[in-house]
Amino acid sequence: MEYKRLEKQIEFIVEIDKLKQVFRQTILMDGSRKENDAEHSWHAAIMAVLLCEYADFAELDVFRVIRLILVHDLVEIEAGDVYCYDLNANQERVKQHEKDAALRLFNILPENQAREFFNLWEEFEEGATPEACFAIALDRFQPLLHDYHNHGTMWKKHHIKSSQVIVRNRKIADGSTILWEYAKKLIEGSIEQGFLQP
Amino acid sequence: MEYKRLEKQIEFIVEIDKLKQVFRQTILMDGSRKENDAEHSWHAAIMAVLLCEYADFAELDVFRVIRLILVHDLVEIEAGDVYCYDLNANQERVKQHEKDAALRLFNILPENQAREFFNLWEEFEEGATPEACFAIALDRFQPLLHDYHNHGTMWKKHHIKSSQVIVRNRKIADGSTILWEYAKKLIEGSIEQGFLQP
Repeated sequence: MEYKRLEKQIEFIVEIDKLKQVFRQTILMDGSRKENDAEHSWHAAIMAVLLCEYADFAELDVFRVIRLILVHDLVEIEAGDVYCYDLNANQERVKQHEKDAALRLFNILPENQAREFFNLWEEFEEGATPEACFAIALDRFQPLLHDYHNHGTMWKKHHIKSSQVIVRNRKIADGSTILWEYAKKLIEGSIEQGFLQP
Repeated sequence: MEYKRLEKQIEFIVEIDKLKQVFRQTILMDGSRKENDAEHSWHAAIMAVLLCEYADFAELDVFRVIRLILVHDLVEIEAGDVYCYDLNANQERVKQHEKDAALRLFNILPENQAREFFNLWEEFEEGATPEACFAIALDRFQPLLHDYHNHGTMWKKHHIKSSQVIVRNRKIADGSTILWEYAKKLIEGSIEQGFLQP
């Protein structure tokens, strides 16, 4: 029997093992080390199952939200993680770099799946559908929870101000009013407890 | 506004961050370090999206397969990971320990979600539904791919024989004939290349 199609899929599955070595500027809640993109994606995916009731949309395809989350960071295998508060990052260049990475990476797959994964990645990036809005909300809410629970380790290290955190995370409101209300409470609590500069 | 329900969900989301510190007897494909349960769960979930066409069932709820995968290892936060080739492990005691862990952990959640997660965990453990059979197949196939690509690091360390690997992974056949055929090729290739004792 021939396995040409399966072998392409396996090659991709082997390639994306590298996501476990892409470390983020998020510290685990126990403060021990940086989180990697694979762990972040798992955590945000299970949050989609648990928190979908708070999405601000009459209809939401939670399965699609989860696929968007599982796939959205894969391009960082090539493009690397850019710290969300890095003002020096050239956003246009980052975007082009990520698009090139998406094309190279997803084209390992059989054609129909390459298209499917590219579309998922692009839908998340554009953030126009209810599913993308909610996936983005979780993608922001998850590290905010970490920053709060590890007492703002990275905020302190990079001298982040609360206004930056509010601007960065306001996108949560596009997916869920309730999660954004809760996020604002976390930010206020972080200021009160000295995790974050006012 | 009160957030009682959301606070329970957040408490659970914070608690399961610990899954990122439960390390398995699987080495990453680049050979650098052990994999943890959160990374494994992400990888197996994305494999479900990619490989569901090989499931031996006329109907398969892939969304459910993914939820089974995202949830199935959570009990190891308390119960720990038991190496699948550990003959000294008392299987009955391990099962009871994991059930106790499931009850404690999932009961952090609001009642309906506690029940949902316990049912997902139990469905995976029982392995009776098409979704559970396929989720289990991926749960076995994923580390096998790792063992092959890191040249059998852990097989060599623990003096594992091919007969043990075949017995352990035969469950793949209950979910997918094609993935089991491919797995057997990986095992044969591992013997030929000296990654695994004949």
